[in-house]
Amino acid sequence: MSRRGRAPRRLDETEAVRLFARAFGTPAPGIELGIGDDAAVLALGRERLVWTVDGQVEKTHFERAWVTLADVGFRSFQAAVSDLAAMGARPLAALSALSLPRGFSGKDLERLARGQAEAARACRCPIVGGNVARGPLLSVTTSVLGTARRPLTRGGARPGDEVWLVGDVGLAAAGLALFQSGRMRARDRASLRAYTAFRRPRALLARGMALVGVAHAAIDVSDGLALDAGRIAGASACRIVLEQRALERALPAPLVALAERLGRSALDLALTGGEDYALVVTGAARQRPRFARRIGRCEKGRGAVWESADGSSRPLAGGFDHFAS
Amino acid sequence: MSRRGRAPRRLDETEAVRLFARAFGTPAPGIELGIGDDAAVLALGRERLVWTVDGQVEKTHFERAWVTLADVGFRSFQAAVSDLAAMGARPLAALSALSLPRGFSGKDLERLARGQAEAARACRCPIVGGNVARGPLLSVTTSVLGTARRPLTRGGARPGDEVWLVGDVGLAAAGLALFQSGRMRARDRASLRAYTAFRRPRALLARGMALVGVAHAAIDVSDGLALDAGRIAGASACRIVLEQRALERALPAPLVALAERLGRSALDLALTGGEDYALVVTGAARQRPRFARRIGRCEKGRGAVWESADGSSRPLAGGFDHFAS
Repeated sequence: MSRRGRAPRRLDETEAVRLFARAFGTPAPGIELGIGDDAAVLALGRERLVWTVDGQVEKTHFERAWVTLADVGFRSFQAAVSDLAAMGARPLAALSALSLPRGFSGKDLERLARGQAEAARACRCPIVGGNVARGPLLSVTTSVLGTARRPLTRGGARPGDEVWLVGDVGLAAAGLALFQSGRMRARDRASLRAYTAFRRPRALLARGMALVGVAHAAIDVSDGLALDAGRIAGASACRIVLEQRALERALPAPLVALAERLGRSALDLALTGGEDYALVVTGAARQRPRFARRIGRCEKGRGAVWESADGSSRPLAGGFDHFAS
Repeated sequence: MSRRGRAPRRLDETEAVRLFARAFGTPAPGIELGIGDDAAVLALGRERLVWTVDGQVEKTHFERAWVTLADVGFRSFQAAVSDLAAMGARPLAALSALSLPRGFSGKDLERLARGQAEAARACRCPIVGGNVARGPLLSVTTSVLGTARRPLTRGGARPGDEVWLVGDVGLAAAGLALFQSGRMRARDRASLRAYTAFRRPRALLARGMALVGVAHAAIDVSDGLALDAGRIAGASACRIVLEQRALERALPAPLVALAERLGRSALDLALTGGEDYALVVTGAARQRPRFARRIGRCEKGRGAVWESADGSSRPLAGGFDHFAS
C-alpha cells in the first residue's frame, strides 16, 4: 500500500513500537524473544539472557521538584529492573547512560549516583559501566541484563486462567497527587507510604522469580493496570476481564482514604496510575501463590474488559502514555 | 577530607566518570571488568559477555542539518558497536532507547530506524528491543552485547610495545568541517570520502576480532587520537609516545589535501578529530598485522607524549570532550 499523500499519523507510543518492530523485527538466530515484551531473550549456550532498557527523562517521567536526585536515581533503576521481575529473571548487572544538563554539578551527580547505587545494592544488580553525555535535560537510561532458564512473557495467558495482582497499584499515583496538591500530611502514615511508593518503588524480583513455572504470563505495571492488562490480552490473543469486586478487595488499605482526600476514585487510581511496578500475572487457580490476589479472569476473545459490580462490562481503556502526554 | 566549603568543581567527562566509578565501583562476583574501559566484561559460565552503551544527543553529538536521520541512526549504532570492536568482541545483539522530540513524525522514526537497521545488518548485530520516550531533543542510546573469550582492554600496554593505528583518523573531522564551511565539492572523491567517514563510520569489528591474542591493549578513537592514546597510557600505567614521522606516514591519503583546503593541519585533524572509530592498539613489533600501521611506541613512564620530527617532545593534550563543550 502506498503511503504517499497520506496525512502523517500522530506518533504515539504504540505506533512508535509498531514502527520499531517493523524496522528491526527480522528474526535472527539465538534471539528467542525480540521487540514487544518486557525484555528481549537471547539464547547463549544453556543460558537465557534477559535484557532490557528503560529511559527516564526529566519533565516527561519526573520533575526535579517532586523528588530528590537520589530518588531519581533510585526509581529509574527500579523501573528498569522491574522488567526483569516481570520475566522472572535474576539480575546480572546494569549499565547507566546519563544525559546531564549544563549546571549539573559534581555534587548533583554524586546524589543521583547514590540513589542508583542504593537501588543496585537492593536488587543485587551491580552497575558495571555507562556513558555520560551533555544534554538539555536530565535523563537516565538504564540497561539491565539478567538470566532466566524459562522467562515469563506477556504472551502465555490462556482462557480459564485467573488474573492475579502481585504488589500494590494506585499508591504511587496517589502519592504524587498528594505531593503536587499540597495535601501531604506530616506524620500521616498513609500519605507517607503513598509518596514513598512514588519516590522509592521496588521491583518485585523475588516474587517474579517465584512465579516461574507457576504463572502463564506476566507484565509489570508501569503505565497503569488497565493499559498493561490490555498488553497481556494483545500478546496472548485472549480477553482479560478485570472484575470490580475482586479488584476492590485487592486495593492497598490506605488507597481508599487517600483517594477520598484527593477527590478521586480509588479504582481509577488503581486502573490508571502507573509506576508502582506491581506485576499482573495469569495462571491456574490451583497454582495461585499466597502473595498473589485474584483480580479477574482470562477468557476467549480480545482486549481488556472491565466488569462492574452490577455485572455490566465495558472495554478498558486508559493508563498513562508518557509518550503522548 | 571534608568537602564542605569547597567551591563546586566544574563537571567534565573525566570527573563524571571518576564520580561514577566511585559510586558504583564495588567489585562484584562475575564482573571481570567494570567502569573505565570501552565496555564491561561479565563472566557467564565459560563465556565472557562484553557489554557497552553509547548515547548520542542532538546538538551535542550531531546537528540535524549535518546529516540525514538515517545517518543519525547509522552512526549512533556504529559508535556503540565500535566499543565491541576495541575489545575484540563479536556482537550478539543491541537495544535502542530513543528520546523523540515533539513533532518527530512516524516517517522521521522510519528514517532513523532505517539507518539503525542498516548498521545492525552490516555489523550482524540485530536490534532486539528498546524504549521510546518523549524528550526535548532527539537522542539515541544504544546498548550492545557481545561475546569474547579473551577481551582486549585498555590496560595491557607494556613498555617496548609498538603503538599501532588500525583504520583512518582525521577524515571524519575533515568531512564535517568541509560540510560546515561549504567547501564540499561535488564530484570530488576526497571530500566525499571524508564526509562519508563522518556520516557513515564503520566499526572495525573484524579487525578487532583479528587482534585478539595478538594485541596487548586497544581502544577505539571516538574523541581523538591524542585523548584516546592518553587513556591507554593511563589504564596501562605506561607512557605512549606518538611519533610525528610515523603518524605522517599513516595519514589517510586525502587528508593532507583536504586539510590544506580547510586551512588546517592534517596532523591536528588526525590528533584531535574524533568519530572515525579507528583503533589504537599496542603490541609486539613482530606481531603487527598487515592492516596495522606503526605510529609510536610504549615506554616506561606516564601519559601520552608527542615526539616531533626534530626529536623534541611535549605532553599530548587535546581531543574532543563532548561533555565540556
